[in-house]
Amino acid sequence: VIVSLLTDYGDDDEFVGVCHGVIRQIAPEVPIVDLTHGIERHDVRRAALVLRNALPYLPVGVHVAVVDPQVGTERRAVALQCADGRLLVGPDNGVLSLAWEAAGGIEEAVDVSRSQHRLEPVSATFHGRDLFCPVAAHLAAGEAVADAGEPIDVGSLAVVELPGARAEDGCLVAAAVAVDRFGNVALNAGQRDLADVGAKLGDVVEIEVRDERFLARAVSTFADVDHGEAIVYEDAWRMLAIAINRGDAAATMRLSAGDEVRLAAR
Amino acid sequence: VIVSLLTDYGDDDEFVGVCHGVIRQIAPEVPIVDLTHGIERHDVRRAALVLRNALPYLPVGVHVAVVDPQVGTERRAVALQCADGRLLVGPDNGVLSLAWEAAGGIEEAVDVSRSQHRLEPVSATFHGRDLFCPVAAHLAAGEAVADAGEPIDVGSLAVVELPGARAEDGCLVAAAVAVDRFGNVALNAGQRDLADVGAKLGDVVEIEVRDERFLARAVSTFADVDHGEAIVYEDAWRMLAIAINRGDAAATMRLSAGDEVRLAAR
Amino acid sequence: VIVSLLTDYGDDDEFVGVCHGVIRQIAPEVPIVDLTHGIERHDVRRAALVLRNALPYLPVGVHVAVVDPQVGTERRAVALQCADGRLLVGPDNGVLSLAWEAAGGIEEAVDVSRSQHRLEPVSATFHGRDLFCPVAAHLAAGEAVADAGEPIDVGSLAVVELPGARAEDGCLVAAAVAVDRFGNVALNAGQRDLADVGAKLGDVVEIEVRDERFLARAVSTFADVDHGEAIVYEDAWRMLAIAINRGDAAATMRLSAGDEVRLAAR
Repeated sequence: VIVSLLTDYGDDDEFVGVCHGVIRQIAPEVPIVDLTHGIERHDVRRAALVLRNALPYLPVGVHVAVVDPQVGTERRAVALQCADGRLLVGPDNGVLSLAWEAAGGIEEAVDVSRSQHRLEPVSATFHGRDLFCPVAAHLAAGEAVADAGEPIDVGSLAVVELPGARAEDGCLVAAAVAVDRFGNVALNAGQRDLADVGAKLGDVVEIEVRDERFLARAVSTFADVDHGEAIVYEDAWRMLAIAINRGDAAATMRLSAGDEVRLAAR
Repeated sequence: VIVSLLTDYGDDDEFVGVCHGVIRQIAPEVPIVDLTHGIERHDVRRAALVLRNALPYLPVGVHVAVVDPQVGTERRAVALQCADGRLLVGPDNGVLSLAWEAAGGIEEAVDVSRSQHRLEPVSATFHGRDLFCPVAAHLAAGEAVADAGEPIDVGSLAVVELPGARAEDGCLVAAAVAVDRFGNVALNAGQRDLADVGAKLGDVVEIEVRDERFLARAVSTFADVDHGEAIVYEDAWRMLAIAINRGDAAATMRLSAGDEVRLAAR
Repeated sequence: VIVSLLTDYGDDDEFVGVCHGVIRQIAPEVPIVDLTHGIERHDVRRAALVLRNALPYLPVGVHVAVVDPQVGTERRAVALQCADGRLLVGPDNGVLSLAWEAAGGIEEAVDVSRSQHRLEPVSATFHGRDLFCPVAAHLAAGEAVADAGEPIDVGSLAVVELPGARAEDGCLVAAAVAVDRFGNVALNAGQRDLADVGAKLGDVVEIEVRDERFLARAVSTFADVDHGEAIVYEDAWRMLAIAINRGDAAATMRLSAGDEVRLAAR
């Protein structure tokens, strides 16, 4: 069993180090995996996607996600037992929702807002330290989910909406869902969706963003095109993505998460 | 026992990784907690505060702090046994001084500048690698403080001055002591100091910085005000702090560490 | 045995965390040392130097370096058994070549591109996750190098060229090989090379970069000069280096890796 951490705390301050300390006090031996602390502040959807994508590569454990714009309000804090043995801990704002689908669904859910495991007094702003990490560490140490909080109805949990892509007039109409630091843009679609509108590997694809059009090539990887050329490819998470070899597709095409993108074979 | 590390080395270079390697060679199994390496270069006071605040959340262990503008000069390097069982290791420039107060005071102090544990030849610029981490690792492995260096007088150790706040004409006169990356500004005062000048939760507080005045509300947390509003609150370290909900108080009020701030109920 | 990781993945995304997860699934107990993930993207030479310099400070283990501009092409992936017991894993682009010299040379080399340890399907862009870390974890868990891939000829491995410095007309002609984030510039030379052209500690040294000349002092450390003064010194890796005390030598002298520098006693 490990504890994994995913937050928007960044690496400049002591927030993450203090979370490690809290976990070490409760579960001295448990391996801690810092999935990332570089989520853009308050970007719940991005965090939900990252956790879902990463989960198959992490050992079964207690997976904490703290991206929590409503910290200090009455939003619930939850711990969830998934069907595949994983435990998820975080605020009830949807940040865990894509992960629990990937983990076979939820078998047991508790509200840990007033958990016996919390550190008192719970601060108004740092629930990672005072609530989420103590709960996670106790679970990693073998304590029962039922003892971490009050049972709640799975149906009442908040979820992140991730609209699907659709075919329309021979176009694939998709949404940008994540931009990484190289400007590569992941879409809510897979390579099969592109094939379904008639674009196969090697084809030129026209990408329409607002009223602008760009040409890209459908390829397996960056190495298939010259520097500066745009590509449409399946990224390492098996999501359809847009990139520019040694360039920045998000900046060039002025694409942000949430934007609509239309793709068609040309 | 853990080893915790606090430095201004940043995350871009291999300095921290090499320190881990050095510790692992001496104490292969000891858990290492990276408290933070994001202290602004040479900011000894900020590091001293971070270590003091974080200490209660860390397991008892060997706590290394390397923010060391005088590296390469004759400044001493020290290891300190505290009353609560913690060991502190770092340069003798005050960076450890707030922590040892929080740890019940010092029972034994040694100058480790020429410790038998150091890695020879000691470089002129990287004492984290050649001196502080080897000493800390040997202490974590169970070696005696007395064997790490030469005994010195506790009274001769450098300390960081942290002036207290004071009440004056119904105002709380405080100093900004730390600014985090969100622009939240911690003061050398607590919530009780604010209550002592008559400002209670919910009140409007006037903040005077140089000749400018700002209005804020005394609240428990960000969620109590609208976006863009200024607040005075007790932060997660129980320090009185100034922030702007989803904004940057330090930039807006042109506040830096060391600045004087006057607060009064309005 | 440890696993050490050196990449250009940065700290903003989940790449490093996922690599840790993959290693933990295969070798749950192995200590992982993050040497650095802050190598500038695709800077193979810098990564090769960092690995060589750091190696003596790391316990013997499996040392992974992933700076891999040709990922997705036919470049080989390799695992190397060194004479001193260390194992090196990475792309065959020279990133490991300075390290294996420091580790006593290579005793056994295998091409792991199609290793039985790889995670299928291997993505086109994230071989750290799908290939290098799984191979490294299996080696750290005790599996034989011979079982990780196909034997290859050591002489066929790519190497990084690191030209030596030379004396010419009483000048030391060297090349800048690395610039750290403080603007300190390491050269492909040692303190002895400087002595060989007649400059000893305390002397003023003239530094010529393109057609500009700067004066510096040959010293042991920053503390030997005033703020703003330039120095030539032996850095913590025993490389001759140029710096400005509390300044940025690379910016001031417009020096980048690869530039020629001429030094002479004055």
